Amino acid sequence: MATIVLYSINRTAQTTVRQCLIPYSKGTSRVDSHLSVFLKTSVRRLTSLPRVRWVPKATGVRFMSLGTAGRTSSGRTRRGAVLVAGAAAAVAGFVASATHFQRAEMASVIPKTEEEDTEIAEKCKTFMSPPCTDVKVLQQRKEEMCTRMEMLIMETQAEFCRALEEVDGGKFKVDRWERKEGGGGISCVLQDGKVFEKAGVNVSVVFGNLTEEAAKQMRSRGKVLKGKDGKLPFCAMGVSSVIHPTNPHIPTVHFNYRYFEIEEGDGTKQWWFGGGTDLTPTYVNKEDGAHFHNSLKEACDKHHPQYYPDFKKWCDRYFYIPHRGETRGIGGIFFDDLDSPSQEEAFSFVKSCAHTVVPCYLPIVQKHLNDPFSPEEKDWQQVRRGRYVEFNLVYDRGVKFGLATPGSRIESILMSLPLTAKWEYMHEPPKGTLEADMLEVLRNPEEWV
Amino acid sequence: MATIVLYSINRTAQTTVRQCLIPYSKGTSRVDSHLSVFLKTSVRRLTSLPRVRWVPKATGVRFMSLGTAGRTSSGRTRRGAVLVAGAAAAVAGFVASATHFQRAEMASVIPKTEEEDTEIAEKCKTFMSPPCTDVKVLQQRKEEMCTRMEMLIMETQAEFCRALEEVDGGKFKVDRWERKEGGGGISCVLQDGKVFEKAGVNVSVVFGNLTEEAAKQMRSRGKVLKGKDGKLPFCAMGVSSVIHPTNPHIPTVHFNYRYFEIEEGDGTKQWWFGGGTDLTPTYVNKEDGAHFHNSLKEACDKHHPQYYPDFKKWCDRYFYIPHRGETRGIGGIFFDDLDSPSQEEAFSFVKSCAHTVVPCYLPIVQKHLNDPFSPEEKDWQQVRRGRYVEFNLVYDRGVKFGLATPGSRIESILMSLPLTAKWEYMHEPPKGTLEADMLEVLRNPEEWV
Repeated sequence: MATIVLYSINRTAQTTVRQCLIPYSKGTSRVDSHLSVFLKTSVRRLTSLPRVRWVPKATGVRFMSLGTAGRTSSGRTRRGAVLVAGAAAAVAGFVASATHFQRAEMASVIPKTEEEDTEIAEKCKTFMSPPCTDVKVLQQRKEEMCTRMEMLIMETQAEFCRALEEVDGGKFKVDRWERKEGGGGISCVLQDGKVFEKAGVNVSVVFGNLTEEAAKQMRSRGKVLKGKDGKLPFCAMGVSSVIHPTNPHIPTVHFNYRYFEIEEGDGTKQWWFGGGTDLTPTYVNKEDGAHFHNSLKEACDKHHPQYYPDFKKWCDRYFYIPHRGETRGIGGIFFDDLDSPSQEEAFSFVKSCAHTVVPCYLPIVQKHLNDPFSPEEKDWQQVRRGRYVEFNLVYDRGVKFGLATPGSRIESILMSLPLTAKWEYMHEPPKGTLEADMLEVLRNPEEWV
Repeated sequence: MATIVLYSINRTAQTTVRQCLIPYSKGTSRVDSHLSVFLKTSVRRLTSLPRVRWVPKATGVRFMSLGTAGRTSSGRTRRGAVLVAGAAAAVAGFVASATHFQRAEMASVIPKTEEEDTEIAEKCKTFMSPPCTDVKVLQQRKEEMCTRMEMLIMETQAEFCRALEEVDGGKFKVDRWERKEGGGGISCVLQDGKVFEKAGVNVSVVFGNLTEEAAKQMRSRGKVLKGKDGKLPFCAMGVSSVIHPTNPHIPTVHFNYRYFEIEEGDGTKQWWFGGGTDLTPTYVNKEDGAHFHNSLKEACDKHHPQYYPDFKKWCDRYFYIPHRGETRGIGGIFFDDLDSPSQEEAFSFVKSCAHTVVPCYLPIVQKHLNDPFSPEEKDWQQVRRGRYVEFNLVYDRGVKFGLATPGSRIESILMSLPLTAKWEYMHEPPKGTLEADMLEVLRNPEEWV
């Protein structure tokens, strides 16, 4: 057993060693087998991408009582959460919140073996870049949720980027960046590709101490957090992506999966997951909509029968542009504050969602790859992209929080904006056109399953 | 003398007659001569547009003590004002604030003569559309500031639209719209013209009662307002414009001039003016910058030597994009809460500013009308327009207030957005290029006079 100081700094130059925020309560062997299955599955997905059937099959639907998960779908908590929850740039929001924080004093006591170390190291080689956290640190604390989630978001980034590269033929530009207060990120961007006008897949892992200001914001979303000497050590990470294709018949997709840990003054640990995947087409395509939503429903149904219906509605509510009276797209799922029924179950659900990103989107891209389109159709896409910009800049909590925070990485936050957009005065498609059909769906969200 | 009910509705169907919010304290003859000069001047400007020398000549600089006008340039009041003051869509903001208000009970007791009526009526014929307020009502209350300001904003709209039409060859589309709670507006838009990609000139005149919510917002900007039975009758109006030319060597211009009146519960009347004109070029042109700022300075200097330096700084502060560390453009002037040294003097200053819009901008348009430009220069313009969108959607108080208010006229609020814009990941012009020079000026605002 080795005691490792993950991060240790304080003003008196004294090294403080603490337990990691979230102690892992299950046995090591189970973690290993869990991680192992997770890694194998994803490697298979990664290597066999365009040949496998992407629509995920529900191999076994497990039911459980809603418990506190039900609470997150109730009015008060959810509304509060929506107020603060980030979406397109939630990860950037984490980074943003970063500057609200001070340096953390954290450490971890974890057992390790050489064999396990090799497994993590091998896995990291398949990523777009070495992970944000040093591989040795990940190896040393591999049972912790922070590590497992970082591995998942790195893997999701790689899986999705490689799938897009294969379709597009272009290569993602990979930018690593560091946050001086603690942590950093990896931004992958493919711009002006054959298929994708702008594709961004961002990972960030940040940690430090919450200031009173940030804590207040957390409180406003129903999380009561009491610090010690005004400090709340935290850790936040996530993967976030927005893909804007060139062809107006290929929809824009967005997904984001994130994890938070906060330690209160009395040592109480709070953690929660958030995320979602949603589609923004330029034209209605019932088949695409059904495929997309069914894929998400299948991922949800494995974990709780109420997840899809609840998170589908939440998505429609969140990605809504009040001043237009329109949703941003045809939705998908969105959730936040997921802290039940157990950390293991919640992570398992998030993992299912993350693994559904490629199979819910790529078949739609493939299907429309060679669809012809007119300048008028391209124009309508540009007008819709204007609405996308309106949502992201005016309403998205992650973007707003990120932009409001000095020192955040703006280019990663605004990576979600399309390459080009248009604002035509009084643009209103004539009745009976395909453009009017799209508007109708955005004004009255449909059930796709 | 005739007693006219301008607007009279209440829930008990009882007609309440009140004095207009701002009683005009000067003699009628002076108003007439004042209005007359004002009208003649503007008619001359209107008809002789491209032939006159547009740079305004200071025919007599009048100095006065700063008084409370000085107060508006001090920290507290100004900062507060900036927090609430609209800019690009301040007028739309009025409209927006509209839905926070209930119907007003207002009336006016004013003398009139047939001759004066004719003068107002003739003037109105030169506008882009009949004014928002019925011509007969304007005739009946012509000494009031509400009427004089409405005539000024209508005239400014017409003067500017006609000047742009003459240069472009195209025609403005004129939309009249009504606000069910009281008032309305006239939006003039020229899109896809020969010279202008998108040009919008908007007028709005709204009235009603402030709700507690709106009153609270007013209080936050330093205006202590006490209502009666929770009601605060108000009247707000303004002209607002943003012009986005096609050629990247012709800069974008924005201006906005506005007037507020609010009646407190004890009968106290509060009024103030706000406004400004600012330029957003794609490339630095020292000569253009000097012409633009000198024009504004001359207009300011006629009224107070401190106006230009104070309002220039205020403009640089207001049109700032914190997350980019850049100003939106090269500035101009910006002011709010102007309620001194007297209503007459303040109006006279606003009038000078409004009359400077054409002479400060049109010579620059003419100068660059036939400048050749490359696809790369057009591209840089599109990137800068992306920043324009970022400012308007994220920071502009008028836009934010407007969008947050149900029932406001979104198309008029977002008229300020460019036809097209672009977001390139990590766009940074190489050192030594003209694009880098522009960025340098936006990062370190210059003195142009």
